[in-house]
Amino acid sequence: MVPEQAPLRALVFDIFGTVVDWRGSIEREGRALGRRLGLDLDWAAFADAWRAGYAPAMQEVRSGALPWTNIDGLHRRILDGLLAARGIVLDEAEADAFNRAWHRLAPWPDSVAGLARLKARWPIATLSNGNVALLVNMARHAGLPWDCVLSAELFGHYKPDPEVYLGAARLLGVAPGELMLVAAHPSDLRAARACGLRCAYVLRPLEHGPGGAQEAAAEGEFDFVADDLVDLARRLGA
Amino acid sequence: MVPEQAPLRALVFDIFGTVVDWRGSIEREGRALGRRLGLDLDWAAFADAWRAGYAPAMQEVRSGALPWTNIDGLHRRILDGLLAARGIVLDEAEADAFNRAWHRLAPWPDSVAGLARLKARWPIATLSNGNVALLVNMARHAGLPWDCVLSAELFGHYKPDPEVYLGAARLLGVAPGELMLVAAHPSDLRAARACGLRCAYVLRPLEHGPGGAQEAAAEGEFDFVADDLVDLARRLGA
Repeated sequence: MVPEQAPLRALVFDIFGTVVDWRGSIEREGRALGRRLGLDLDWAAFADAWRAGYAPAMQEVRSGALPWTNIDGLHRRILDGLLAARGIVLDEAEADAFNRAWHRLAPWPDSVAGLARLKARWPIATLSNGNVALLVNMARHAGLPWDCVLSAELFGHYKPDPEVYLGAARLLGVAPGELMLVAAHPSDLRAARACGLRCAYVLRPLEHGPGGAQEAAAEGEFDFVADDLVDLARRLGA
Repeated sequence: MVPEQAPLRALVFDIFGTVVDWRGSIEREGRALGRRLGLDLDWAAFADAWRAGYAPAMQEVRSGALPWTNIDGLHRRILDGLLAARGIVLDEAEADAFNRAWHRLAPWPDSVAGLARLKARWPIATLSNGNVALLVNMARHAGLPWDCVLSAELFGHYKPDPEVYLGAARLLGVAPGELMLVAAHPSDLRAARACGLRCAYVLRPLEHGPGGAQEAAAEGEFDFVADDLVDLARRLGA
């Protein structure tokens, strides 16, 4: 089922939204924090606002307006702004612990089983804008069986810069056409495809909550479309 | 048992000789190659010669005489020289496959069990001069359960350059004093200690074969001395 021009030799995965449910996890952590501190907030909306700050923050780094700052640092900048706007003061330990909620995101129900099947056949690695420590802690927390943790941090560039996709192929010792990116976001996949990678689009209709907006993708735009990671394993023959 | 100044938060491991038996593995692969091609060589001596070329080759990179070349590339340069000196001609596919014997090194008998125990308590990562693809393939082949594959290749510096030890701490999100290097080579441990890392010295008396020479270490020089990785887990209380 894989196109014949070159063997598929490794898979890399977008993480936030593709492998883990950031919105549900941040909402849960927010609720627990709110109960502890007596804060009555819409924590799903808080999660959305936190995540909404992510692309603009990375864009500041990509444009050179901000020196290289890893995702822990960007998450913290955004968090501090959201808290200040709501008049919430957390002490440093509490703010740091909440910021690290992104290290404890829960996998989608199919992720661990799907990754295990794929790993039995090919090396599997993260390819996330999340920093290495975040991804390592998340994998230990969520039981994600990566062969390798690759991050934008290793290249000093955030996706969708080509350095990230090409750097992953180089480190894994494969040609771009032998590497497949698995992601729930067409914009990420299109940037990978422009670097010569293969693309598997995983539908995650609940990433932004029930009824949440999705990036549009054209019919037949990517090599594979899968309902989840177990479905992807089946479609790839793993 | 860990010194009290800072909690131990992660462990990184030297690989060649510390976690895997390069000499026995290369000797076995050489024998198999020799049987297939009718070459009658002392393959243990061949393994020793191949390994002996490793430090000088890295030194050429460290000195700037050679541009950055990963270990696959350095291993191949050394191999080509050894084959030429013995009048052996391998075709490209055969030479490449033999060069990749370093991706298939066998673990010492205690390595997988010891790493599993340590991993249950702390994040564990490679910290090797081997390139990422080599380490990923080795882990899949040998069943080494790394949380993260860190390599000199990520830093553009080979051990014992300080960039490697300090880079590992940075990527793992810990202070140098919260990180322990586990290695069978005092020179590696001393360089890590100079960067502020903690050090566990693992005795591998068979690394260079029965009766093979060992680097000397002074009594009490390192934080821990262990007979193998299971013994290290026990000594660390894991």
